[in-house]
Amino acid sequence: MNSHHIHQLRAKNIGIDTYRENIVYMRADCHICQSEGFTALTRIVVHHNDRSIIATLNVVHSELLDHEEAGLSMEAMKRLAVKEGDCLTFSHLKHLSSLSYVRAKMYHKELTEQAFNEIIADIVAGRYSNIELAAFISGCSGNNLSLNEIIGLTKAMINSGQKIKWNNPMIFDKHCVGGLPGNRTTPIVVSIVAAAGLTIPKTSSRAITSPAGTADTMETMTRVNLGLDEIKQVVGKENGCIVWGGAVKLSPADDILISVEKSLDVDSEGQMIASVLSKKAAAGATHVVIDIPVGETAKVRSTDEAKQLQSHFEVVGKEIGLQVKVILTDGSQPVGRGIGPSLEAMDVLSVLRNEKVAPLDLKERAIVLAGMLLELSGKYAVGTGNQTAKEILETGKALAKFLAICEKQGGFREPQYAIHKQEILSEREGIVKSIDNRKLALVAKLAGAPKSPSAGILFLSPLGKKISKGDELFIVYAEAKGELEYAIDYMKSNNNIISIE
Amino acid sequence: MNSHHIHQLRAKNIGIDTYRENIVYMRADCHICQSEGFTALTRIVVHHNDRSIIATLNVVHSELLDHEEAGLSMEAMKRLAVKEGDCLTFSHLKHLSSLSYVRAKMYHKELTEQAFNEIIADIVAGRYSNIELAAFISGCSGNNLSLNEIIGLTKAMINSGQKIKWNNPMIFDKHCVGGLPGNRTTPIVVSIVAAAGLTIPKTSSRAITSPAGTADTMETMTRVNLGLDEIKQVVGKENGCIVWGGAVKLSPADDILISVEKSLDVDSEGQMIASVLSKKAAAGATHVVIDIPVGETAKVRSTDEAKQLQSHFEVVGKEIGLQVKVILTDGSQPVGRGIGPSLEAMDVLSVLRNEKVAPLDLKERAIVLAGMLLELSGKYAVGTGNQTAKEILETGKALAKFLAICEKQGGFREPQYAIHKQEILSEREGIVKSIDNRKLALVAKLAGAPKSPSAGILFLSPLGKKISKGDELFIVYAEAKGELEYAIDYMKSNNNIISIE
Repeated sequence: MNSHHIHQLRAKNIGIDTYRENIVYMRADCHICQSEGFTALTRIVVHHNDRSIIATLNVVHSELLDHEEAGLSMEAMKRLAVKEGDCLTFSHLKHLSSLSYVRAKMYHKELTEQAFNEIIADIVAGRYSNIELAAFISGCSGNNLSLNEIIGLTKAMINSGQKIKWNNPMIFDKHCVGGLPGNRTTPIVVSIVAAAGLTIPKTSSRAITSPAGTADTMETMTRVNLGLDEIKQVVGKENGCIVWGGAVKLSPADDILISVEKSLDVDSEGQMIASVLSKKAAAGATHVVIDIPVGETAKVRSTDEAKQLQSHFEVVGKEIGLQVKVILTDGSQPVGRGIGPSLEAMDVLSVLRNEKVAPLDLKERAIVLAGMLLELSGKYAVGTGNQTAKEILETGKALAKFLAICEKQGGFREPQYAIHKQEILSEREGIVKSIDNRKLALVAKLAGAPKSPSAGILFLSPLGKKISKGDELFIVYAEAKGELEYAIDYMKSNNNIISIE
Repeated sequence: MNSHHIHQLRAKNIGIDTYRENIVYMRADCHICQSEGFTALTRIVVHHNDRSIIATLNVVHSELLDHEEAGLSMEAMKRLAVKEGDCLTFSHLKHLSSLSYVRAKMYHKELTEQAFNEIIADIVAGRYSNIELAAFISGCSGNNLSLNEIIGLTKAMINSGQKIKWNNPMIFDKHCVGGLPGNRTTPIVVSIVAAAGLTIPKTSSRAITSPAGTADTMETMTRVNLGLDEIKQVVGKENGCIVWGGAVKLSPADDILISVEKSLDVDSEGQMIASVLSKKAAAGATHVVIDIPVGETAKVRSTDEAKQLQSHFEVVGKEIGLQVKVILTDGSQPVGRGIGPSLEAMDVLSVLRNEKVAPLDLKERAIVLAGMLLELSGKYAVGTGNQTAKEILETGKALAKFLAICEKQGGFREPQYAIHKQEILSEREGIVKSIDNRKLALVAKLAGAPKSPSAGILFLSPLGKKISKGDELFIVYAEAKGELEYAIDYMKSNNNIISIE
């Protein structure tokens, strides 16, 4: 980035956390604002030693800063490696050229791989404001990205971070496109597949718009923020791991984009494919199984939509050298009983422990996915994967592998129930006819999931169940009383979450 | 908005200007963040007495606040009518339902007028974060809005603010869609038309992506931030005014949207039509002339595009009860010599004063537009408008009217030159073959226009002019040395602004 240096100010550590966005605080009457005519929201280049960042200006009209001082948000201090009292210099932001591609995308122009490379590089370097990130995400949402653009974006995201190299030529992975509360197969699948001797270094994300991501769920049982060397150690010993991907900076652009997607509550097709496959490729995977639950209130609502997504996953996968196999599954209702990190972890443990009360649907889904991976390896004949997976699970080998993985990641602990709870009782009798997954997930989120790990829902009324008046439909758990009340409030105006006829 | 009250904190005036976005500052270890699990970027409802606002949380990890205090950005303090020490309470933000329409628009669904009403009402109430505003603007950009949606958005924007009522049944107005540096006909047109006895209460905007808006230009000669009563007084006495529209809160949603559009440097068709016509309708106009300059580097680049825009302006105008007449004009080069508020004001005065050196192109454009308005009134026969306008201008009646209007608005003053300047000389000889209006405008902006009113460009090399080596092509003016250098820096890497062959 070219820049033109001018005067300087001393850094003051004002300790304001603005999350990802770089904010610089300067007095309205400091000599730099006055001579340069900087006003609130001006984008400014801030320099310290040989580093520079782009920051958005917030203007201070109080004694928070003195005339010779400037403040930086906490993330900006870190990015610029600044300590209190360090000397900062400031310059005008020259035209950030990748933004012209963002504008072109807003106008529905097709972008090249090179354009995506420039955009993603600037995003990773922290050069985009939240407004600019939101515009890029919006421009890529809906079906605005062509297949070529999805490939370009995926490659750009792979290039933006580090890539893990493995000695083993075959590296396995799995992914579920989500939208189905409680569908926490990953810890079970990884345990079965690793117990079978395949290498499956699983990096998972935290929740984007759901009440729990696999990383959130695993974090209630073990440590998940492992660095690259630690991951290699765990996988070297146990063939698998189940960690948070963000700590190893695979596809770091994705983490930034996800923070804005989350606040807009969107997760568009093109960005989802790029996000998923870039993380798989960067993690060094060669063979990937993708689970797409299809249902009226799941993320993917129709078989047509699912088939297009399937085709796009397979084509983009091939372009970046991944063997991708997609399975469409039933997305009409939650899987297992728990919705929320701890409650889902309890379901996972129940299946691994072969408890009598273990949720059968979760178990069966995990076996199918593990079976596909086993067959994909070529080491197990087509048609034998499921049976092998089932045996590994039911003989306790998967549980032993899971506990060993947790041990290597930092030790296993039991997930806990939240202290506040409220049973939701049926006001009528009949058969459960339909379940609104989105509203159910929203209740779990309002109750605090995934931020509060033990918050969520224990779901007790699957499709087809016969319900009497006064039966428990589900139980809401929360760590804070306010959050419990808030979730209950929402349900009062939305009593059609579970339809009983 | 429903909300669920919890504990309270005392307001501290920390004097941070974040422009339009409401930011609330809370300590990470205050009892509310801890019990509610609020983290950076959480959207929170802040209550004071019977008012409430939605604000984005920035978390404080320093002694900037004590445990019982919360800070608010300056605009948020004002919106909530809070003083230092006042009691604030906080609650979770319930689902903001209009955001589901924004997401639907991102996915290319057609929105109803009711959906736009809800979105615009929430935007005007300050309930959208900058990320959410950017998503809405992006969703409406390109050609994403159907004609029906443009009508719905326009009506929603009219409904969002006050409307001016006039006793006169015919109220005239004009608008130029911009994109052509220096095209400052408005002060001349208003002066001619008002001198002819028609009522033309002109409210203008500040620059969105250009080096000057009419309000910026007028502000170098008189006061422009008049309230509604003052506008009525000026127009009552002089038939016309030329003021900034923002001070009277006509279409207040537009001002908020424009601030984000400006930072993204976009101005899409649908939002432009809604922005322009909502302001005209809210200002009480009945007859409007719209000037669309067409040129390769103007805002509208082709005749096809211009004709579609013309048709949309006329259809939307009719739907909201406005008689709209559109003229397509030459947009191949700057108009007049000045680019930037003060320099354009000098051109305006030169034409009004009938100086020999007055730019003929600006004069002729003003006469054509004024002539159209005169004929649109029915008081002047078709074919006689131009001649009448020319006479009013050349006899000095327009100048007298202009000075009278300025006097009533708060007094007339002469625009000034900036203290720093640099002549740009031709390095070759030949004929001026083409001019890149966008790059020329960018140089004026880099030099400080419109923020620094006397910054900009004095343009001396129109198309077809014979140039010798060493001739002045244009002069860059700046109020700050840094800005002058910055504009010059840009030109060093962009020496194809004016092509000479």
